[in-house]
Amino acid sequence: MKAGIIGSTGYAGAELIKFLSRHPKIDDILLSSVSFEGQRIEEIYPNFLNIVSGRLLKAEDVIASCDVVFAALPNGVGEPYAAACMERRIHYIDLSADFRFDEDEEIYSAWYGKPYQFPELHKNSVYGLPELNRRRMKELAAKGPVIIGNPGCYPTGASLGVFPALPMFDGGGYPVIIDAATGASGGGRELSRSFHYSECADSVSPYKVGSHRHSPEIARNIAAMAADSGVPSARIIFTPHLTPMIRGILSTIYIPLSRQWRVTQENSFMPPSGEIEEKTAEIRESYAAFYKDEPFVRVLPAGLTAAANRVRQSNYCDISVHMDINGSTLIAVTAIDNMVKGAAGQAVQNMNILFGFDETAGLQAIPMPF
Amino acid sequence: MKAGIIGSTGYAGAELIKFLSRHPKIDDILLSSVSFEGQRIEEIYPNFLNIVSGRLLKAEDVIASCDVVFAALPNGVGEPYAAACMERRIHYIDLSADFRFDEDEEIYSAWYGKPYQFPELHKNSVYGLPELNRRRMKELAAKGPVIIGNPGCYPTGASLGVFPALPMFDGGGYPVIIDAATGASGGGRELSRSFHYSECADSVSPYKVGSHRHSPEIARNIAAMAADSGVPSARIIFTPHLTPMIRGILSTIYIPLSRQWRVTQENSFMPPSGEIEEKTAEIRESYAAFYKDEPFVRVLPAGLTAAANRVRQSNYCDISVHMDINGSTLIAVTAIDNMVKGAAGQAVQNMNILFGFDETAGLQAIPMPF
Amino acid sequence: MKAGIIGSTGYAGAELIKFLSRHPKIDDILLSSVSFEGQRIEEIYPNFLNIVSGRLLKAEDVIASCDVVFAALPNGVGEPYAAACMERRIHYIDLSADFRFDEDEEIYSAWYGKPYQFPELHKNSVYGLPELNRRRMKELAAKGPVIIGNPGCYPTGASLGVFPALPMFDGGGYPVIIDAATGASGGGRELSRSFHYSECADSVSPYKVGSHRHSPEIARNIAAMAADSGVPSARIIFTPHLTPMIRGILSTIYIPLSRQWRVTQENSFMPPSGEIEEKTAEIRESYAAFYKDEPFVRVLPAGLTAAANRVRQSNYCDISVHMDINGSTLIAVTAIDNMVKGAAGQAVQNMNILFGFDETAGLQAIPMPF
Amino acid sequence: MKAGIIGSTGYAGAELIKFLSRHPKIDDILLSSVSFEGQRIEEIYPNFLNIVSGRLLKAEDVIASCDVVFAALPNGVGEPYAAACMERRIHYIDLSADFRFDEDEEIYSAWYGKPYQFPELHKNSVYGLPELNRRRMKELAAKGPVIIGNPGCYPTGASLGVFPALPMFDGGGYPVIIDAATGASGGGRELSRSFHYSECADSVSPYKVGSHRHSPEIARNIAAMAADSGVPSARIIFTPHLTPMIRGILSTIYIPLSRQWRVTQENSFMPPSGEIEEKTAEIRESYAAFYKDEPFVRVLPAGLTAAANRVRQSNYCDISVHMDINGSTLIAVTAIDNMVKGAAGQAVQNMNILFGFDETAGLQAIPMPF
Repeated sequence: MKAGIIGSTGYAGAELIKFLSRHPKIDDILLSSVSFEGQRIEEIYPNFLNIVSGRLLKAEDVIASCDVVFAALPNGVGEPYAAACMERRIHYIDLSADFRFDEDEEIYSAWYGKPYQFPELHKNSVYGLPELNRRRMKELAAKGPVIIGNPGCYPTGASLGVFPALPMFDGGGYPVIIDAATGASGGGRELSRSFHYSECADSVSPYKVGSHRHSPEIARNIAAMAADSGVPSARIIFTPHLTPMIRGILSTIYIPLSRQWRVTQENSFMPPSGEIEEKTAEIRESYAAFYKDEPFVRVLPAGLTAAANRVRQSNYCDISVHMDINGSTLIAVTAIDNMVKGAAGQAVQNMNILFGFDETAGLQAIPMPF
Repeated sequence: MKAGIIGSTGYAGAELIKFLSRHPKIDDILLSSVSFEGQRIEEIYPNFLNIVSGRLLKAEDVIASCDVVFAALPNGVGEPYAAACMERRIHYIDLSADFRFDEDEEIYSAWYGKPYQFPELHKNSVYGLPELNRRRMKELAAKGPVIIGNPGCYPTGASLGVFPALPMFDGGGYPVIIDAATGASGGGRELSRSFHYSECADSVSPYKVGSHRHSPEIARNIAAMAADSGVPSARIIFTPHLTPMIRGILSTIYIPLSRQWRVTQENSFMPPSGEIEEKTAEIRESYAAFYKDEPFVRVLPAGLTAAANRVRQSNYCDISVHMDINGSTLIAVTAIDNMVKGAAGQAVQNMNILFGFDETAGLQAIPMPF
Repeated sequence: MKAGIIGSTGYAGAELIKFLSRHPKIDDILLSSVSFEGQRIEEIYPNFLNIVSGRLLKAEDVIASCDVVFAALPNGVGEPYAAACMERRIHYIDLSADFRFDEDEEIYSAWYGKPYQFPELHKNSVYGLPELNRRRMKELAAKGPVIIGNPGCYPTGASLGVFPALPMFDGGGYPVIIDAATGASGGGRELSRSFHYSECADSVSPYKVGSHRHSPEIARNIAAMAADSGVPSARIIFTPHLTPMIRGILSTIYIPLSRQWRVTQENSFMPPSGEIEEKTAEIRESYAAFYKDEPFVRVLPAGLTAAANRVRQSNYCDISVHMDINGSTLIAVTAIDNMVKGAAGQAVQNMNILFGFDETAGLQAIPMPF
Repeated sequence: MKAGIIGSTGYAGAELIKFLSRHPKIDDILLSSVSFEGQRIEEIYPNFLNIVSGRLLKAEDVIASCDVVFAALPNGVGEPYAAACMERRIHYIDLSADFRFDEDEEIYSAWYGKPYQFPELHKNSVYGLPELNRRRMKELAAKGPVIIGNPGCYPTGASLGVFPALPMFDGGGYPVIIDAATGASGGGRELSRSFHYSECADSVSPYKVGSHRHSPEIARNIAAMAADSGVPSARIIFTPHLTPMIRGILSTIYIPLSRQWRVTQENSFMPPSGEIEEKTAEIRESYAAFYKDEPFVRVLPAGLTAAANRVRQSNYCDISVHMDINGSTLIAVTAIDNMVKGAAGQAVQNMNILFGFDETAGLQAIPMPF
């Protein structure tokens, strides 16, 4: 089986190469690049020397010869390739934002500045968060070629932290707050002042406060899951921070609890009561039950807090469950590797689902904290 | 004038040495250490070689010869030194938590595990956050020797971000959330697994979620300021994170707005409206007005977001003001250097206030972002 | 087939767990620990949660049940375990320095402060640098159980950079200089001031200048290879530096060239001549030829310089070849991951050799520079 | 007194602003920039907000109004400004390479690709390394306006490490090797792949091996000092490395010793003898004597090794003195802050010398290792 990667020279593309070249079901990979066409991938990424080799082709030539196509392109350019794949009747997995909003074209165009070019494609596409849409992905794949809108990095970590809490959420009240920190690879390979070593090392700062494009994607995911669980939808507040690490997204999520899940503690002055610990254990069990069959979600036992380096280089999402000092708010902390579960790893997981492979095939890297 | 530093070999002590040895009003500094008594400070910190030199004495000998004493000791051991200073009728500035709770002994003992040893001392002490208590500090100093409880690092950054917002705060509703990130120097000189390079570099993780000792200090500061402004008090949720930077605390603070300060935007799906931008400008002006006479607080103009490296090595607290996508919540971001405004710099600022020096004396370092 | 790891809770032990638990020929792994006996490995390293699980046993119980034993212990304690393995007639791979000096007990005891406890074991042991001793390792394995002294991290990177240059080396002249930089994981899991984040981040410093224990190991390796190639032996100068990275060793190696390999350029004032470039190309080809059959050594093409992050998490040793501005000295730069080719990866490579497995089995991770 | 900074928006320019705005003899500073003319400096560097403010002017307007001019420009464009300053009879301190080679135009043009535009200016210029040329700087300043060629960052750290060793150097033998590591700020404010966080963090790599432009500057400095001490000149080998730190240059320097300074130790296999320690102490004393009157050079006592973070943010050059395991080579390690002693600080030191101010005026920052 041959896999193609369009836009293979960005970070997500390179990460796809890493996973697909070691995937037990993939025999060959074909690569394209507009900027570096004709060069070899190991000239752009010398880490691949003697391991992976390949001439960078035109996207059309990749599509014409492959059994599945991944696109790791900038936002707004992928639709024609998706159309070409549908015509060739092969699955197309898009890592940009172009197929993340399905039929909500209004939201997409408000944030990404352009309408859909091929609106009909978005009727067949599915948002590729397995923990939300695995069944729908399988159903569609049973019928024919599928377009996957691979989730954004922040929305993956945020949504997985909120889903199990929806039945406990105080729907009528305050928004869910997602305060998240990303590593610099989230900014991609493109040079910019934000990622100039001397100015981002040894510091931390939020960016696009109140206006990041991943906000509507997170809000939509929560709404979708809430609809399933019969919960009134949640507004969200999302604040991303740039931190001096290469990979990783850590999301600290504040979820106001409905009355029956709260613990009464009158103020913020006193240490948490034993009652808070008990209720937290109960909530943690709900989380563990919710994800009990998920191969890549780990609900951490009491005493552990999710940390970015404990999932680095792996497809895991770690979740730790806590409660605030006042007993009113669930604090869920999630950690993913933004390049893996937040991008390329999840794309491969989606391919595994579409083809009926073992969902962990090619994704069994063990994360090391050092 | 002679300044003494008790417990001078921890990070806060060393930072005090740096500031006091260059202070225009200080002629000499005397140092004490229990662990390294008899050695010279430049043996412990070779960075001081040829610049600052001094034998490490007993605390009593320091107190006996100085005109002002700083204590940078672990929590729970400073009271006898404070008593000795009061007896000698010299000001005593304590960087531990021991004098931060004034007459609220119940809160102190619940979190720090011991009662006050000299309760009467706490009637004369004042919490040394100049932006909150400058006037009281001056009044007390006019009457005699003063004990200053120098604020915690997190409470400084958090409180300064919340104070100007109290009149806009929705008192009956949701807590104020402070999501903060600290550099590793916040953990001090003591070795611990949390600060072992291989396990904390290239990562980020929260700790003591829902149970950090700085929670009650922040809550109390807000209550104190709120009482002054006639606002009902606020509950808080505080989550500290360890990030891979040496210095700095970045606090992202979520403050639910009262009805008249909100902007109506119906959901989290659409980009922020122009109305949000206008209201944010209005709030930003309130912040600027609130701090217009403060020498070390900078309210950033629109377009800038507070960043840890822009205050590094300085006594500044930068604040940027934003609003969430739903128009319901004020997001204030504050940045301080945890060792300066969060510890030694603020202690020197307090000394300047007590003695009537120019408040910026010895504190004019310019922060560089590289 | 069952593999045992004695001393499994240090960094090298944890890294062995990572490689062995994904090794195609290993069905099960057994772990021991003195400090944490009775606990589970995933309690010590929560990154293993849901992936690798195992109770920490006594070393004897591990040895009694395994087909091969790895020891990742402190120096000076491994000999009894080696003896026990020989008695059970199973291979024993020791990652400490205890079996690196074979019959040169005098050198070992001068640097490590104790004589051999079981001198006869050192007659059967072999220094496990495959590029030097692969044949001898196979010969011994054909006869019976083998003790492998797995190489030190620095000696691996240094030796591989020098070996191909021996025929070009100016034997009568100046020493070979190895100026090397390590990541903090080289210091292991044990806490120490050197690895306290606030004091080693954002800095670089050499340590044990002129007196590091890896000096004699490097010198001996070069002597051993030189003896094979009929070259007079080389003295060496080795200076290790601690740099703020988690993993990696970068060695910049200065090798004085014999007359016929030099290029005459009269001083250090003018840019390098074209002749230098030509001669460098010739030397690079010698290096490439020397390592042409090695699965884990990559001699980089002209234009590339070895970098630590391009081999991170992999078993590769990258080598780039340069010449100094005066045309008198070959500068070879090598990069390895100190935890992989410098420790656990090389140990697994050695196991593969002893058992006749494909030498790359279990070691096919692709390094990513981001 | 008014100081002007031409090219004030690069890192060296910004650092000059920091030092000059706090300099006791400077009343005002004027700034120029080609790229940002008309904007305010605090818009480019928000760290200056409320501290330093100034509109970015044309270079000519700065020169016309100042008493001394600093130029922090790219190489090759400064000569006309130098000419203008000479005409106005004010000192001109150039931080580029343009005035570092005095009358050696051949070397300059071979490395920087262009001839001198105003050759006569180079007869009056002086290379501004105070430890080498302080006397000449004063002599020239006594006669009229002076052009200072402020030293390169690497040449400063390298030269100061070699100077005291020249009388011990084995002139007929092997070159001096300088193996140096720089922080990322050495690459300036300009974006480039080398300084893209995700690819340079957590790694280390040499660059321009055998061909860096600072080689001839170092070689020339050593030749100049050697000529003074009657020592035959030294060839050098210089290898710079990029390390993940913001500031700092650490140079590990290998100086072959002449016969009378060597210690006989026959090979690299045994630990260093006591004789090596004694000889090292003797050499260390020579270093200390050589620099005894230098305000910014610290020769470290036995037991300490120079480290980049112990001079960070200061104008110090730390030097530690060691000997190699074979007793043949002196290893001097020097540490400077590349932006201070390696650029702006040294420029201010040079101004202090030219004007007869206390040489440490404005340069008394205390470095902190955390």
